[in-house]
Amino acid sequence: MISEVELIKRIRRQSSSPPLDLLKGIGDDCAVFIPNGANGADTLSLITTDTLVEGVHFNLTWHPPQLLGQKAAAVNVSDIAAMGGVPRFALLSLAVPTTMATSDLDAILEGFLSALARDGVSLIGGDTVRSEQGLTLSVTVIGEVERGQVLYRSGAKAGDQIWVSGWLGQAAAGLALYQHGRAELQGLYPGLRNAHLAPQPELTLGRALAQSGLVTAMMDMSDGLASDLGHLCEESGLKALVRAESLPISGDCQQAAQALGLAHQQLAISGGEDYSLLFTAPPAAGEAIAGLANHSAGGQLSIIGEMLEGQGVLLSQAGLTRHIEFQGFDHFAGGRL
Amino acid sequence: MISEVELIKRIRRQSSSPPLDLLKGIGDDCAVFIPNGANGADTLSLITTDTLVEGVHFNLTWHPPQLLGQKAAAVNVSDIAAMGGVPRFALLSLAVPTTMATSDLDAILEGFLSALARDGVSLIGGDTVRSEQGLTLSVTVIGEVERGQVLYRSGAKAGDQIWVSGWLGQAAAGLALYQHGRAELQGLYPGLRNAHLAPQPELTLGRALAQSGLVTAMMDMSDGLASDLGHLCEESGLKALVRAESLPISGDCQQAAQALGLAHQQLAISGGEDYSLLFTAPPAAGEAIAGLANHSAGGQLSIIGEMLEGQGVLLSQAGLTRHIEFQGFDHFAGGRL
Repeated sequence: MISEVELIKRIRRQSSSPPLDLLKGIGDDCAVFIPNGANGADTLSLITTDTLVEGVHFNLTWHPPQLLGQKAAAVNVSDIAAMGGVPRFALLSLAVPTTMATSDLDAILEGFLSALARDGVSLIGGDTVRSEQGLTLSVTVIGEVERGQVLYRSGAKAGDQIWVSGWLGQAAAGLALYQHGRAELQGLYPGLRNAHLAPQPELTLGRALAQSGLVTAMMDMSDGLASDLGHLCEESGLKALVRAESLPISGDCQQAAQALGLAHQQLAISGGEDYSLLFTAPPAAGEAIAGLANHSAGGQLSIIGEMLEGQGVLLSQAGLTRHIEFQGFDHFAGGRL
Repeated sequence: MISEVELIKRIRRQSSSPPLDLLKGIGDDCAVFIPNGANGADTLSLITTDTLVEGVHFNLTWHPPQLLGQKAAAVNVSDIAAMGGVPRFALLSLAVPTTMATSDLDAILEGFLSALARDGVSLIGGDTVRSEQGLTLSVTVIGEVERGQVLYRSGAKAGDQIWVSGWLGQAAAGLALYQHGRAELQGLYPGLRNAHLAPQPELTLGRALAQSGLVTAMMDMSDGLASDLGHLCEESGLKALVRAESLPISGDCQQAAQALGLAHQQLAISGGEDYSLLFTAPPAAGEAIAGLANHSAGGQLSIIGEMLEGQGVLLSQAGLTRHIEFQGFDHFAGGRL
């Protein structure tokens, strides 16, 4: 079985020379292009697509259909946020099992449309097909960003500080509550549950960071810190050094992990789907960036390490340093649910 | 089980008031919008998405993976052609079964990318996920069209002639050759086989018709003449009268239908996936339009009837007239493979 990373490399190799109006193709949160060949345009177009497959990305036995619809919108809007952009339009492709109740389908649509409306996005197209097996939601979102404000994964500089918004490992802890079937714990940690079921894209924060002009590179966290930071390092041609004691891990996450017999630090490093923002900025910008924390859905921003010459992602802990890149989960190879 | 038409109506109802820069949302071959709020823009953006599901839209026991990749590109490019536009960028979301051979996946990608290259389209993004069941290809294509040239389904006028490009029922006859397992016939009719396995989008014709300024309404034929013309009538608020003797049905289609015990006229009326263009124009434009036939992949254009005040799709044959709208197949409700 081919891995997602390998498949993307294969697609990159097979894609022929990019056209002049394509500023970024495969390999960032969104593709970025100049709309309709208007070379003088001050505004760039962003586009992203993400597919959620039943049994791989969600489990309907515990995922309320309305929250699933919200999540399908949110994970795509998050990719626009990660470029510093504004989402505008969405398309939805649904492959629906013949056994699915109409009321569940309505709830999915209601959740999807309410999340779009909250973020100022209009549903403008899509298609619906019958599925012989599970439910699949494939979403495309188009957005825009000012030419001078777009933020790529590739812009980090050696010496930059590494920032994350919100808490790490929340969604992974929430998922674990369901996977372990611990109903009595699910009621105790609504924040963890919601992080898994209905993540909030960091749209306001992404815009504020892009407009600040202080950030050098940015992406959203879908696959987990280790894996996502690995991508940012690879695109920027640098190494990351993360301090374990600086990882923002909530008290809820720590308590729930303990009750489940899991290591909370591992959830924070390898757990995916937090949809927080991961970004870099020079130390001199630190105070100004910290002042933007109120724009985060998670309400806080943390410096977790710094960018250095070299490659890979290193975690320093109690005087020891080890490589952790690509420890996040791979939706493609993994078997999460 | 909800039908595709009903689901789309439900989405339309739930979508809130459209933004000012959205010229066409759900209900045409593409959504049409003004890129990045540039109200004075002479060029509009087009976007479309189509999903192909294994067991519903294709059967890998007879569909060569390379041609499947081509088809996934073609059916989306065809939607851009149907608006009179030029396709620019594509995104590909693949849900891949863990059992799929890497060589098959490579062949799909190769076919997809070669079809894109032929039509001047760049692959700029997408995602890949693991599928617990069959293969799903979800494709999004973005294109552009001059503001004065875009062609909707809704522009037909009473008295207009109804045109189709190429031959009708070719893809349905090709599919039937496989469904009936008649290997000896498959070799006899490569044109029918290819119409099913690797349809050609009418990109050149679509552009020529848009630039001619003669056409009032246009769409591509994905669900079959009866159903697609039904949509054009509904969007234009008119009725269509089709003459059975004018339907372009190839000798191959007639012979293959006879060998399979099928009615060739039924294939032409209800068979989907021909991806030819269906369009309307005033009678005075007839000669000029006929002169554009060399731009068609099928090499010919036919007048099959006319638009009238009223509603529905009527077929006249041997002095009798009957309603035929919505006899095309519904990918969603149907069970084709």
